[in-house]
Amino acid sequence: MTFTLRCRPYTLELKHRFTLAHSSRTTTPTLLVELERDGIVGRGEAAMPPYLGETQDTARAFLTAIDLSVLDDPFAVARALATVDTLAPGNTAAKAAFDIALHDWLGQRLGQPHWRVLGLDRDATPATSFTLGIDDPDQLAERAADAARTFRALKIKLGGEHDRDAITAIRRATDVALRVDVNQGWRDREAALAELRWLADRGIELVEQPMPRDDREGTAWLRKRSPLPIFADEAVQRLADVAAAAGVYDGVNVKLMKCTGLREAHAMLVTARALGLRVMLGCMTETSCGIAAAAQLASLADVVDLDGALLVQNDPFEPMPFADGRVLPNELPGLGVMPRTR
Amino acid sequence: MTFTLRCRPYTLELKHRFTLAHSSRTTTPTLLVELERDGIVGRGEAAMPPYLGETQDTARAFLTAIDLSVLDDPFAVARALATVDTLAPGNTAAKAAFDIALHDWLGQRLGQPHWRVLGLDRDATPATSFTLGIDDPDQLAERAADAARTFRALKIKLGGEHDRDAITAIRRATDVALRVDVNQGWRDREAALAELRWLADRGIELVEQPMPRDDREGTAWLRKRSPLPIFADEAVQRLADVAAAAGVYDGVNVKLMKCTGLREAHAMLVTARALGLRVMLGCMTETSCGIAAAAQLASLADVVDLDGALLVQNDPFEPMPFADGRVLPNELPGLGVMPRTR
Repeated sequence: MTFTLRCRPYTLELKHRFTLAHSSRTTTPTLLVELERDGIVGRGEAAMPPYLGETQDTARAFLTAIDLSVLDDPFAVARALATVDTLAPGNTAAKAAFDIALHDWLGQRLGQPHWRVLGLDRDATPATSFTLGIDDPDQLAERAADAARTFRALKIKLGGEHDRDAITAIRRATDVALRVDVNQGWRDREAALAELRWLADRGIELVEQPMPRDDREGTAWLRKRSPLPIFADEAVQRLADVAAAAGVYDGVNVKLMKCTGLREAHAMLVTARALGLRVMLGCMTETSCGIAAAAQLASLADVVDLDGALLVQNDPFEPMPFADGRVLPNELPGLGVMPRTR
Repeated sequence: MTFTLRCRPYTLELKHRFTLAHSSRTTTPTLLVELERDGIVGRGEAAMPPYLGETQDTARAFLTAIDLSVLDDPFAVARALATVDTLAPGNTAAKAAFDIALHDWLGQRLGQPHWRVLGLDRDATPATSFTLGIDDPDQLAERAADAARTFRALKIKLGGEHDRDAITAIRRATDVALRVDVNQGWRDREAALAELRWLADRGIELVEQPMPRDDREGTAWLRKRSPLPIFADEAVQRLADVAAAAGVYDGVNVKLMKCTGLREAHAMLVTARALGLRVMLGCMTETSCGIAAAAQLASLADVVDLDGALLVQNDPFEPMPFADGRVLPNELPGLGVMPRTR
C-alpha cells in the first residue's frame, strides 16, 4: 500500500495590503498538499511569498516528482526527508509541505497530536505577535491600537521613509510590547546603532535582521553595542546556519517554510537553545495548516510570531485555538488541521 | 489513575574482571526501575560504576522521593523531566532510570518502538565496539583476537604501565578497528602528542579523553596537532557541555547515565551534529534495559560503544538483537525490554 499525493494551488487573500520596504501585495500564493494512505489524510502546505523564489508551479513540480516509495515505511522519517531534501537544492517550502503532511499523517496514525508525541508542554506556549506592514504613521497607530486589544505583542516592519514617526505614533497609541523587523534594511553600522538606541528608549523588545544577512562582521559589531537583542531571520534558513549565528546574533527566527519543515525546525530549536541563542518561531502568510504545524513546536520558542493565518481572509482551514494572545495547537491527532466547514 | 514506581537493587556480575587505570572490579551495582499505569509497565535502569558517586541507596532515595503527580499527563515529558531534574543536582543515573522507564511506558502506550516514534532509521545503526579493560599484553592480545571474531571494532583502555606493549601485541593478533580510551590519563601535552602519533601509526581510529577534562587549553592544543580524532567523555556530561566541546574536541561521547536519559541524549546528539562534532553513543556496564534505551538512538551516532550488557553474565533481560557487529533496537513497542525467561 503506497501513499497518494495531491496538490492544489490556492491564493491567499490578505485582509490588508501588506507592504515591506521593497514589495507590496494583497495576495500570497500557497500550495495545499495531501498525503493519503490507509484512509488517513495528512495535510501540508507550501506558502510562498513571491520574493523567495518558489512558485505554485515549482512546488508542484518538485512534489509530484517525488517517488513515494520513499514512504514505504512512513515512520522512517529521517531517511525519507533526507532523500527528499537531496532531490534538488532549495525548494524549501515544497519540502516543508511534504514534511508537514507526513507529520500530520503520522500523528493521526499514532492517535496523538504531534506536540504530545514530542513530549512538549502546550501550556508553555508564548503569546504570538501580530505583524503590521509598512503604512503611514497615523494608519499604523490606529491599527496598532486596534491590534493591542487582541494581541500581547506587535511586530512592526521598518524600512519605510517614516520609521521614527511610525514608532512615535504607535507608542502614543499603545504601550503593547513592540518588536521591530528591519529585513536587512540598514547598511551603516553607526547609523544602525543610533536607531537601536532610539528604539530602546521607546521600549522596543527586540530587533530582527537589522543588517544584510552577509554582513556578519557588521552585525557582530552592532550586537556588542546594542541595547536590544538582535535576531537573525534572513541569515538563518537551515539547521547548518544556526551554529554560525552564535556570537553574531542573540537569537534566530525559525520558520518551517525556509527550513523544510517540522523535523528540521525541531532540530534548529533544540540546537539554538543548547547554544544559548534565543529562538523566535515565525511564519509566512499561511493557512491554518502551516500555522497548525508551527504551533506544535511553539512551546520550545522564547518568542512566537505565528500570525500568518490571522492576516488571511480566505483561510480554507479551521483556525487554531487562540487564547490569551497565544496561538495554540489543538488536541486532535496529528497537526489538528480541519477543513473549514462553511 | 496515577503511576506506581518500583525499585530493585541488582548486582551485575562481570564476565571478566574490569580494570581501569585507577580501579578494578568484578561487579557493578544497578537499580532496576518500573513505572506502571493502565496495565503497562515501563522499565528503566540506573547503572552506577562506583567511581561516579551514585549508589543503589542514593538512586532509590532520589526516585522514591519523586511526587508521581508529575506524570499526571505522561506525555508532557519535557515538563516532567525538567521538574525531576530540579529536585536535586547530580543523580544523573537515577534521573536516567526515570526517563528510560517513562519512554518505555510511552512507546508501549503508542504501540511503537521509541526509535520509530523518533522517525529514526534503524538500518543506519553503526557497529558497536567491544571494550577490553587493562590487562597484560599477552592476555589482551588473546582476548582481542577472540573478540575480533564477533566485533568490528574494539575499545582499549590505556593508562596501564604497558600501553605500547599492549597495542603492539593486539596489533600483532588482529587488524580489527581499534579505539583507545585514555580516561584523562595523560598530563603532558607534548608526551600526549607523541603517543597519538605512535597510535596513529598503528591504525588506531580515535582517542577518547586523552587529557584531564578541565584542561581545555591543553586538549585544544593537542587536537590542532593530533593525527587522530579526539573525543570527549568525562568532559561532556550534559547538554550544556556540548557547545563548550566544539573547537576543543572532534567528537563527544554521549551516555544516558551521565546525561539523565533519552530525552537529553537525543538533544545532545542533535546539537553535536549541528555543531559539526562527531558523536559516540556509549554506555556503562548495564543490563539490556539500559542498552535497549541507548540502542533507540544509535542510528544518530557516528560511533557506537554499546557493549555494556555483553560484559555481564547475569543480565536479567533478553539481549538486544546483535547482527553484523551491531547492537540493534528490536521491533517491540517502547524500548523492547523483556525480562529474561530462564
